[in-house]
Amino acid sequence: MMAAQSSAGAIARLVKPRSVAVIGASADPAKTAGRPVSYLTRHGFAGAIYPVNPKVDTIDGIRCYPDIGSLPEVPDVGIVLLGAERAHQAVRELAARGTGAAIVLASGYTETGDAGARRQAELIEAAGSMRLLGPNTIGLVNLTDNIPLSASGALAMDHFPAGSIGVVSQSGGILGALLSRAAARGIGLSKLVSTSNEADLELADFIDYLADDPATRVIALYVESVRNVERFRAAALKAAAAGKPVVAFKIGRSEAGARAAVSHTGAMAGADRMYDALFRQVGVIRAQTFSDLIDIPAALATGRVLHGNRIAVLTSTGGAGTLVSDSLGVSGFETPAPDPQTAARLRALQTGDHAALDRNPIDVTLAGLQPDLLRGAIRALLASPSYDAVTIIVGSSGLAMPDLMADAINDCLPESDKPVLAYVSPHAPQVAAVLNQRGVPAFSAPESCAVAFAAMLAAGQPPQSAADAEPVSAATPGDLPQGPLDEHAAKQLFARFGVPVVRETVVADEAGAEAAARTLGERVVLKILSASITHKSDVGGVAVNVAPDAIGMRLAAMRDAVRQHTGQAPTRFLVQEMVGGGVELILGTHRDALGTAILLGMGGVTAELFQDTTLRLLPASGALSRAEALSMVRALKTWPLLDGYRGRPKADVDALVDAIVAFSRMAAALGPRLVEAEINPIFVLPAGQGVRAADGVAVIGP
Amino acid sequence: MMAAQSSAGAIARLVKPRSVAVIGASADPAKTAGRPVSYLTRHGFAGAIYPVNPKVDTIDGIRCYPDIGSLPEVPDVGIVLLGAERAHQAVRELAARGTGAAIVLASGYTETGDAGARRQAELIEAAGSMRLLGPNTIGLVNLTDNIPLSASGALAMDHFPAGSIGVVSQSGGILGALLSRAAARGIGLSKLVSTSNEADLELADFIDYLADDPATRVIALYVESVRNVERFRAAALKAAAAGKPVVAFKIGRSEAGARAAVSHTGAMAGADRMYDALFRQVGVIRAQTFSDLIDIPAALATGRVLHGNRIAVLTSTGGAGTLVSDSLGVSGFETPAPDPQTAARLRALQTGDHAALDRNPIDVTLAGLQPDLLRGAIRALLASPSYDAVTIIVGSSGLAMPDLMADAINDCLPESDKPVLAYVSPHAPQVAAVLNQRGVPAFSAPESCAVAFAAMLAAGQPPQSAADAEPVSAATPGDLPQGPLDEHAAKQLFARFGVPVVRETVVADEAGAEAAARTLGERVVLKILSASITHKSDVGGVAVNVAPDAIGMRLAAMRDAVRQHTGQAPTRFLVQEMVGGGVELILGTHRDALGTAILLGMGGVTAELFQDTTLRLLPASGALSRAEALSMVRALKTWPLLDGYRGRPKADVDALVDAIVAFSRMAAALGPRLVEAEINPIFVLPAGQGVRAADGVAVIGP
Repeated sequence: MMAAQSSAGAIARLVKPRSVAVIGASADPAKTAGRPVSYLTRHGFAGAIYPVNPKVDTIDGIRCYPDIGSLPEVPDVGIVLLGAERAHQAVRELAARGTGAAIVLASGYTETGDAGARRQAELIEAAGSMRLLGPNTIGLVNLTDNIPLSASGALAMDHFPAGSIGVVSQSGGILGALLSRAAARGIGLSKLVSTSNEADLELADFIDYLADDPATRVIALYVESVRNVERFRAAALKAAAAGKPVVAFKIGRSEAGARAAVSHTGAMAGADRMYDALFRQVGVIRAQTFSDLIDIPAALATGRVLHGNRIAVLTSTGGAGTLVSDSLGVSGFETPAPDPQTAARLRALQTGDHAALDRNPIDVTLAGLQPDLLRGAIRALLASPSYDAVTIIVGSSGLAMPDLMADAINDCLPESDKPVLAYVSPHAPQVAAVLNQRGVPAFSAPESCAVAFAAMLAAGQPPQSAADAEPVSAATPGDLPQGPLDEHAAKQLFARFGVPVVRETVVADEAGAEAAARTLGERVVLKILSASITHKSDVGGVAVNVAPDAIGMRLAAMRDAVRQHTGQAPTRFLVQEMVGGGVELILGTHRDALGTAILLGMGGVTAELFQDTTLRLLPASGALSRAEALSMVRALKTWPLLDGYRGRPKADVDALVDAIVAFSRMAAALGPRLVEAEINPIFVLPAGQGVRAADGVAVIGP
Repeated sequence: MMAAQSSAGAIARLVKPRSVAVIGASADPAKTAGRPVSYLTRHGFAGAIYPVNPKVDTIDGIRCYPDIGSLPEVPDVGIVLLGAERAHQAVRELAARGTGAAIVLASGYTETGDAGARRQAELIEAAGSMRLLGPNTIGLVNLTDNIPLSASGALAMDHFPAGSIGVVSQSGGILGALLSRAAARGIGLSKLVSTSNEADLELADFIDYLADDPATRVIALYVESVRNVERFRAAALKAAAAGKPVVAFKIGRSEAGARAAVSHTGAMAGADRMYDALFRQVGVIRAQTFSDLIDIPAALATGRVLHGNRIAVLTSTGGAGTLVSDSLGVSGFETPAPDPQTAARLRALQTGDHAALDRNPIDVTLAGLQPDLLRGAIRALLASPSYDAVTIIVGSSGLAMPDLMADAINDCLPESDKPVLAYVSPHAPQVAAVLNQRGVPAFSAPESCAVAFAAMLAAGQPPQSAADAEPVSAATPGDLPQGPLDEHAAKQLFARFGVPVVRETVVADEAGAEAAARTLGERVVLKILSASITHKSDVGGVAVNVAPDAIGMRLAAMRDAVRQHTGQAPTRFLVQEMVGGGVELILGTHRDALGTAILLGMGGVTAELFQDTTLRLLPASGALSRAEALSMVRALKTWPLLDGYRGRPKADVDALVDAIVAFSRMAAALGPRLVEAEINPIFVLPAGQGVRAADGVAVIGP
């Protein structure tokens, strides 16, 4: 990030400029460099267009200027069509004149290696305080105001489908694909931006802008990598606060997690799960398939949210209704039969003998193609207390009357705030487009209805605010040694922040062990103590269930075994109280470019195979809140084991939540100095008996 | 099923008739009853068309007959357009004349309730030995030979996209949707059949027919419910043997399993998992989404299978290539960078400075729009030992040249047997259609590429034949009591079929328990023995780790506890050897309309939460084979726990496989008399030490 003009003002000037200079414009509209002027004029841009090209006098009847210096006024935006070798000069001149922002389309920057990275640095330097979109971008399209600032062939359409979905993409090509796909489906967009290399303006800038943009109701993101997490988080939360859902499709999903050196947490965390955690924590709805990135915003653009999971499926054709019901069922929605009152209301519509009105799908047969009857059925279902939403099936017979459905649905919608979606069974893109244009989200995949409803359910549940994070003092304990701590030191560190640990004593020999054991109970655990040996049991360095009488002999045997394995006899041992009867969990930290996360998982061998873990990123301001910590515990598939499953005692969840918060407080306080930390296992005892960290590792950095 | 003509011959006559009578034909082609004659003439049906309608002389210039009796010859097929109240009369007359098959389009039969069911029975009776398609069907379309036998509005197209995919659907409406969707995408079909109510001809009949049909290469099924499992199984295996993959989309996926009375198996089995097992066992590839039902057959229709999971992604636009790679990665495919030889070959194509040839996606930039260069790149990737298949990305720039890609790919395909798929990034249905028509499967969802490749991988692995099933004598032990067996009797039954069980003794009192315990080891298990109390531990009826000295006292306490819980003092107890150190599994039977299945799952509380279970249906001919039993064990997510995970001892998998086979032999031998049976847990001890059934239930029917 560079020093820059007030972000919001500069972006507003970029998105809705009064004047646009096109540097390197060609007089040939068939050429790429001819397109920006051609697009601007074709879509009726009302402001001033200033083509810059020393070789021609006019382009498309518009006066052309030989250079930037001779422009008659300072342009709000400069579109730079020059190649990477010359673009920085134009950027420097635009900046010198006080231009609001430059859009640099050329490729050949960071995406191509070291020489490109140097070119990009030069570009940033040349821009100074002028804002920069790109390079390697296809630009920006303001569909609300019909302002295309782009040379992309994907914009060669006569009419943009204007609407309320703002799209920000880190890939230009994908932005073009989304535009053409949305246009074909009659789904309207408000603003389209490709941030691409993000030399300056980035995802967060445009999320922030769109959160304020009155024309935008939903924000759709194509994400390759979030560069600035805190700004992303703030922008997403601002959009949420403005009631504008943010939907993101994120690639890089199969990247392996950074493998941590001494803990299991890193391998279980994974880069993609960190994004999952980030998105969930700021209320971003994650699109799981590429088509979801259009389908979900199309549904959310209605502004309707879902308040329950009971869906009425209204059909005039049996097969497709059943298909949609089935798909909804697979996704956890219910399709209950109409209640008696609703069924009676449907029967009163006189749908004929073959109609099935006491089941769901509600099949009104071809009688449903009569507008009055259709309206009556939709009204009855929207009014029914048995349903939270309605899906309407368009069969082959409805194709000849594409407006019928849209009219009927639109007539009924004002009477209810429940969502209504349409499923188009045969191939009939024109019918789906009419429905979408008329504000009825229409899908051709049955699965999309379920995905859309799920998002409409999520949109009704705003994100937990970061405001309730536990504040943490940034003062870090200065007395920590650097490098990996031994188990005892690691647990002392955890204890200092409030995590309960097992009672234990460090001993050097048989006599010390026996004395320690006698204070710790009938049976104890004996381990070697070493900062360098992380897999103690692999070298014979762990014994459990040892009686104090036998501990001396056991220690001697352990010393021999470890010497055989490692070549060195251990000189320090830990004698620990033995904890039994609890549930074993793992609690760790993981850090990557997105920040620091706390990972909670079921411990033990079986659970490892199922990877039953959950992640939360630390908020910028501090530790996890108790509510967030509790949500982690409840997110485990094995949560029932803590909650009295099959007559087991309930576990001390309060104490576990306290321990998670304490552990996260440590991670927040130590910040980047805490390279890795993991408690494995932490025993959660029955309610009232607390938790105990029984083993752990920590690595302290410089 | 009714007594009927030789199935194959009758179906061949139905699918490719030389003469078609249309009963109730209308002279108005706009009416539904006017369509069949109109469709037949429009598509150039070469045989005889006999409209039957007493009110008109000719239809579309074709002579019309007043009744079936006056037809000049016996038709191969009669399409009955009359309503349900009259259709059976026409069917009777057609049968009387010796017609090959009747297609009854009317609805109002079993799908509408009891009165409809009676009408359907009447229809079947009227047909006699004549074959019947429907009722409530949209009919049949032979696209290979341009013979539409249907009145569906979905067929109102001038040209059928003929190809090699045969489609059989249990829903008529869905068949129409599939036809219109395939046609729009340029995907060719061979035969389309809607079996609907299946009064006679059913799924299996047409799978069997299509397995022999030279025009059909892949069979796609839309399944609501398989009515005759053995015929389905035989037909699917016949198709597999003919090298024709069968792809099925099955609804009813969210139906709850039949809840069994005394075992857990029923709840874990579930109706849909039974279908999963059936499909897997006969090599049917299951389509997970509705669009997969077109996408997968389109890929398999190329006849190419995938022999590995390494995919080259060739692109001229960065974003979409990365999107497809990411999607492939999520599905477990690899996209390795080109090997040095391949990279050198690509560089030799002179793609220019900005091309990325040493990574994957391989980005040849817009230079890739030159046919020679494109061919060169495809050739290099197909020839590379690093790749098993290629995906080619079509970006916006390629849209103007829809034949370019298809030509280039078709030029290269003969040199390799590797699959090549295309992904079309912008909305460009016409480009995708050209590719599909030219034999290059083209998709507009990145996820579809992964789904198609996964199916092409599966198609290279034929199903395990049912031929290696263990033969079982049908003789059932006659001396079994009826109703639920107590635990001891259940285990005796299991042991009789060869399942090893724990040593145990039935006792009545303290003295008996003590005597028994002394023969069974240092520590034993004590349980109440009752056929009616299934949850023994809930009533205080189980004690583990009991020393022989203490067992008398323990038994007395147990007697009291159970009396308190149930009001009755138990009079019989079991003293069992205690088994430790093994892995606990659950082994059960489940029976529903599809047959009898064996379920194997990880036992214990944690595993229950993860539902780590696997199912296999018993073959018609007997018990599970050892290979099938071993595949069950290896299919568990917790298989590593049996296989020496993290230094654990390897479990006695041989003995477990023997026990599964023995248990399945019992299920096969007892057949429907075995209402329920479950071993929970069965302990699998370390290798060489065998397995032990430690508890179990069985219910014997009449």
